[in-house]
Amino acid sequence: MFYVGLDVGGTTMKAGVVEDGGVPRSSVSLPTEASRGQEFGLDRMCETIRQAIASAGLTLGDIAAIGVATPGLMDIPAGIILDPMNLKPWKNVPVKDHVARVFGKPTAFQNDANAAALGEFWAGAGRNVESMVLFTLGTGVGGGIVIGGKVVEGRHSHGGELGHMKIEMTNPRLCGCGRFGCLEAYAGAMAIVKRTHEALNQDAGKSSLHAVLRSAGELTARDVFAAAASGDGLAGRLIEETAYYLAIGAMNTMHIIDPDMVVFGGGMTAAGEGFLARIRHHVHELAFAVPAANTEIRYAQLGTDAGFIGAAACGRGLVAG
Amino acid sequence: MFYVGLDVGGTTMKAGVVEDGGVPRSSVSLPTEASRGQEFGLDRMCETIRQAIASAGLTLGDIAAIGVATPGLMDIPAGIILDPMNLKPWKNVPVKDHVARVFGKPTAFQNDANAAALGEFWAGAGRNVESMVLFTLGTGVGGGIVIGGKVVEGRHSHGGELGHMKIEMTNPRLCGCGRFGCLEAYAGAMAIVKRTHEALNQDAGKSSLHAVLRSAGELTARDVFAAAASGDGLAGRLIEETAYYLAIGAMNTMHIIDPDMVVFGGGMTAAGEGFLARIRHHVHELAFAVPAANTEIRYAQLGTDAGFIGAAACGRGLVAG
Repeated sequence: MFYVGLDVGGTTMKAGVVEDGGVPRSSVSLPTEASRGQEFGLDRMCETIRQAIASAGLTLGDIAAIGVATPGLMDIPAGIILDPMNLKPWKNVPVKDHVARVFGKPTAFQNDANAAALGEFWAGAGRNVESMVLFTLGTGVGGGIVIGGKVVEGRHSHGGELGHMKIEMTNPRLCGCGRFGCLEAYAGAMAIVKRTHEALNQDAGKSSLHAVLRSAGELTARDVFAAAASGDGLAGRLIEETAYYLAIGAMNTMHIIDPDMVVFGGGMTAAGEGFLARIRHHVHELAFAVPAANTEIRYAQLGTDAGFIGAAACGRGLVAG
Repeated sequence: MFYVGLDVGGTTMKAGVVEDGGVPRSSVSLPTEASRGQEFGLDRMCETIRQAIASAGLTLGDIAAIGVATPGLMDIPAGIILDPMNLKPWKNVPVKDHVARVFGKPTAFQNDANAAALGEFWAGAGRNVESMVLFTLGTGVGGGIVIGGKVVEGRHSHGGELGHMKIEMTNPRLCGCGRFGCLEAYAGAMAIVKRTHEALNQDAGKSSLHAVLRSAGELTARDVFAAAASGDGLAGRLIEETAYYLAIGAMNTMHIIDPDMVVFGGGMTAAGEGFLARIRHHVHELAFAVPAANTEIRYAQLGTDAGFIGAAACGRGLVAG
């Protein structure tokens, strides 16, 4: 049996055909071009799905089900994107019904980070566990939770919004969501850049990142990780603090969900095993002894394929026994 | 069908026979007397179960299954209390096997707060919902999570340890567990008393609680709630802050689990609807709009029966279809 998964992002969308074991047979990326409107967007989704089927050497008749994952505020059971921050000016987009009607296949709909979690659970880092929490480290911090093969999508489609647990009261940072003290306001790439600018304003020109900022005109989280790897003290401290913040996030889920495994995915995992080791270190310091000693903490394994593989898994969930 | 539930606490243990609909037919309390040792404790558990059956006018033959709930560090699947803080000097107590052997019935074992959550889900505040988070407000802050009728007990028996999510980094309070910044260090009855003493040391004798402290020699959380209800400004501020801390706990679970309902149980609910209204107020301010508007926030309904009713539900889960 074959399933198509589609992962819609702010800049590109990626679709692939996935076999029953979770192995992709194809993958195709097209630009999302959200600014061209949601009708265009729905057509683009269907086109990406068609191309994924064709590039796998298959036809629609070979496909048992389809899954679509999208970002933003949504109503998962209704299959609607409500008001997506990264897909403006889309509003109330009936993704599931549209895709189901066009292809005439059982069609699932899921939050993108939830889908990525299910992808890693099915075919990636979590493929041998019963329960898994995924933190996606990109511009912000997303998340997904899988318990016993099922995504914890929540009663109001807000399950796994791990970037928006509050971890600070006294001096809380403003989050992109408008709230204060969210994990994302500390540990996402955007937060790292902000914290770096603040730190550079305080260090009297000593850090190597001043020169990077002067020559490039801006800083990225990647610059900060690179400077830390080269021994820059200020950058090293910022990265160490980031590992601590992420460990708090992991620990809180370990005391709430207590999963077999906590997985970190997304662009920031390019920082490598040293960064993961620091997260592990802080988790061991922070958490209760038994989960601290026994919860596996790993990087994701599917890279940017996790979303469409997980979306395909959602489709598969509709038809597989 | 009838089930026996037993809820073992630090000072008393309570057992009752429960019918299929979750209604208790009897309940019996005996002192735990943990100091007399765990052999005595296991005998006392069996005696409490026997008395509950007898006081319901039933015999062992009428009982389909038994469930036992206990506090403390435990291995739930193994049915063992490991090192219970409130049941010293017990250690590695094989509760499940002992009770199963004595009565020859299917026997379940569960954490006490998890059992209380399942009790409220089965027959109390959450009896019409799909998913529920319970905070138990006693000396400390406990918790239990039920999703789709199943307790989230976690891979290492640490699911629902809601009192030990970290909510503060900058100036974190020391928790009874030895960690810093746990919700319990802010919002349990013991934390309220501690915060009250700190506040009284700062207010130059104005609060009415100074007189309470002088005459009684000590303060309880109940005194602080009572003073707040009588218009004492210092007490009012402490209770308002407590509602805020609990709202953070609720909000974090709403952004992680996103349940239908968040329930507050335990002794502190004696504070009444005004206190619950303040928790609700802060949740509305803190949480994402959709869960804030739609998540029900309630007090528990089963009082101190929740534990044995939930334990009976765990037993029932072993045999009911």
